Amino acid sequence: MMKIAVDAMGGDHAPAEIVAGAVAAAAQVNGEIILVGREPDVRAELARHLRVPSSLTVHHAEQVVEMDESPRLALRQKAGSSVTVCVDLVRDGLADAAISAGNSGALMAAATMRLGTLPGVQRPAIAVFLPTPLGKRIVLDAGANVDCKPEHLADFALMGSEYAEHALGISRPRIGVLSIGTEASKGNELSLAAHGLLAKMPINFIGNVEGDQILAGEVDVTVCDGFVGNVVLKVVEGTAQGLFGDVKSSLKGRALSRLGALLLRPALRAVAAKYDYAEYGGALLLGTNGVCIVAHGRSDRRAMARAIVAGAQGVEAKVQEHMAEAFQRWNAAATSAPSLSS
Amino acid sequence: MMKIAVDAMGGDHAPAEIVAGAVAAAAQVNGEIILVGREPDVRAELARHLRVPSSLTVHHAEQVVEMDESPRLALRQKAGSSVTVCVDLVRDGLADAAISAGNSGALMAAATMRLGTLPGVQRPAIAVFLPTPLGKRIVLDAGANVDCKPEHLADFALMGSEYAEHALGISRPRIGVLSIGTEASKGNELSLAAHGLLAKMPINFIGNVEGDQILAGEVDVTVCDGFVGNVVLKVVEGTAQGLFGDVKSSLKGRALSRLGALLLRPALRAVAAKYDYAEYGGALLLGTNGVCIVAHGRSDRRAMARAIVAGAQGVEAKVQEHMAEAFQRWNAAATSAPSLSS
Repeated sequence: MMKIAVDAMGGDHAPAEIVAGAVAAAAQVNGEIILVGREPDVRAELARHLRVPSSLTVHHAEQVVEMDESPRLALRQKAGSSVTVCVDLVRDGLADAAISAGNSGALMAAATMRLGTLPGVQRPAIAVFLPTPLGKRIVLDAGANVDCKPEHLADFALMGSEYAEHALGISRPRIGVLSIGTEASKGNELSLAAHGLLAKMPINFIGNVEGDQILAGEVDVTVCDGFVGNVVLKVVEGTAQGLFGDVKSSLKGRALSRLGALLLRPALRAVAAKYDYAEYGGALLLGTNGVCIVAHGRSDRRAMARAIVAGAQGVEAKVQEHMAEAFQRWNAAATSAPSLSS
Repeated sequence: MMKIAVDAMGGDHAPAEIVAGAVAAAAQVNGEIILVGREPDVRAELARHLRVPSSLTVHHAEQVVEMDESPRLALRQKAGSSVTVCVDLVRDGLADAAISAGNSGALMAAATMRLGTLPGVQRPAIAVFLPTPLGKRIVLDAGANVDCKPEHLADFALMGSEYAEHALGISRPRIGVLSIGTEASKGNELSLAAHGLLAKMPINFIGNVEGDQILAGEVDVTVCDGFVGNVVLKVVEGTAQGLFGDVKSSLKGRALSRLGALLLRPALRAVAAKYDYAEYGGALLLGTNGVCIVAHGRSDRRAMARAIVAGAQGVEAKVQEHMAEAFQRWNAAATSAPSLSS
């Protein structure tokens, strides 16, 4: 039976909203959800719910990593923290996935150091979904690695390709490198070098893509460094919020507009929800030896429930296993290639 | 009298839409608009307009730089191109501003090489306006320099501060460095080093800002390298387009929604227009010795007219003069500072 370890103490609204999200997710997940954190606090939160599913269990962890703590220090000084214990449960085979809405640097550091990376993967990356009129699209890295080398982007491309295929069911996903012009000659040092590497990989590489192409849904997976990817994510969020704010305030005071808004409400709500981070739940950390989900720090119960369900789906889709096999094939091909000429 | 040189041959819809835009702008600009390009082609376009204002003149230029040409080669081999002639008119004091919707690299190269940069400015930068619920905000560089050093971002900050003050009328504009966390310790190598430099400058530096903060209007001027800035610009454009596409398609087929959409049309149109690049006309190239405007390659007559009017406003606001003075003061302060201790 599947087991998901949830960091009950991590996030702006922990533990209340995290526990509430786990209660909601329990109905949708065929397996056990382990709430990791200070047992008295977690039990007190659980007591506020009328019906607590039996598939919800509590695993005590004494320490808590604060949102603004240094991930490196936290990892060294707080081995008993809820986020580290979540990761350790995965490492020890006691859980299939770890989820935290807390200090994302601490989760990544714990995952990288305690689970290790898949053979052939130099750096794990955070993969996020972006909303487009044609469906979800993937961008990675969204913040795990702020300064990257071209080879890192090559790893991201292979991981993203496997993720799109097995998590979104897209066959031969189109992979692009984020740049500022579609011509191969356009870009910065990193994107130009990455373009050269990706062109030789066993993926469906479509070349450079621009920011507006991602949002138009013209590419399935876009690779970039974690600084740029995180900026993209926040800019999408900010533009959508600003736009909806503008629509709302433009309706104030006009009677006919107010009537129109009333009639349109269901449609507008549906679109607004699509551009809301909470719909996407969490971002999968790709490339570590075990499934880890970085949930949004601002996660409420709805976002948390979705993150937990997404984690369960990631486990079911065997994303990490497919990724490990892809890197094995790629490495084998790279190693065997020279011997052909001998 | 003010004179604006317009590259009639540059852009996806040149010369027809460029000439039409100039005709429209002539009514709003108190000065002469010089259409630069192949005289027979330009005159043929002008002949299609019923009333051609006398303030529109034509200046012949034999060559045309294509959109996909190498800017460097174009500058060397086509000294008689419409874009280069526009810049030369500014250099020779025969025009106050040059505007092109053509090959933006060629315009930037011509401006940098033939006008030179203001004393103290290492690299010119493209400044763009982004729409927010609280009004226009500035981001630079939006594409002139794909790989930057921290000192370049320091120059951008001072240029952007002057631009916001004199073009938007904001006193003590808030300047931020684009990053992936508000804490000073968050960012990549470039943003961290830039943060250190900006903190010591004679500007109203507010620290790191994230993408969603720009779009919420929490910062007046955001500095970043030209790769990231261009990505931000395209992502805003793409998100707005995607969102409006989603709203439109969610309305199809529902009778009540269609009625609502009809009632809401004026309000939605106003918001859509705000997020349309055409409303912003052109982006000012800051730091060169003369006003140059990079118009969107897809500019239609409306966008072109706005770019020309924006150029005229830039000239009237004496943005370049204020910038030159700011760099002079800054350099003087930097030079005199050590002598205080002697």
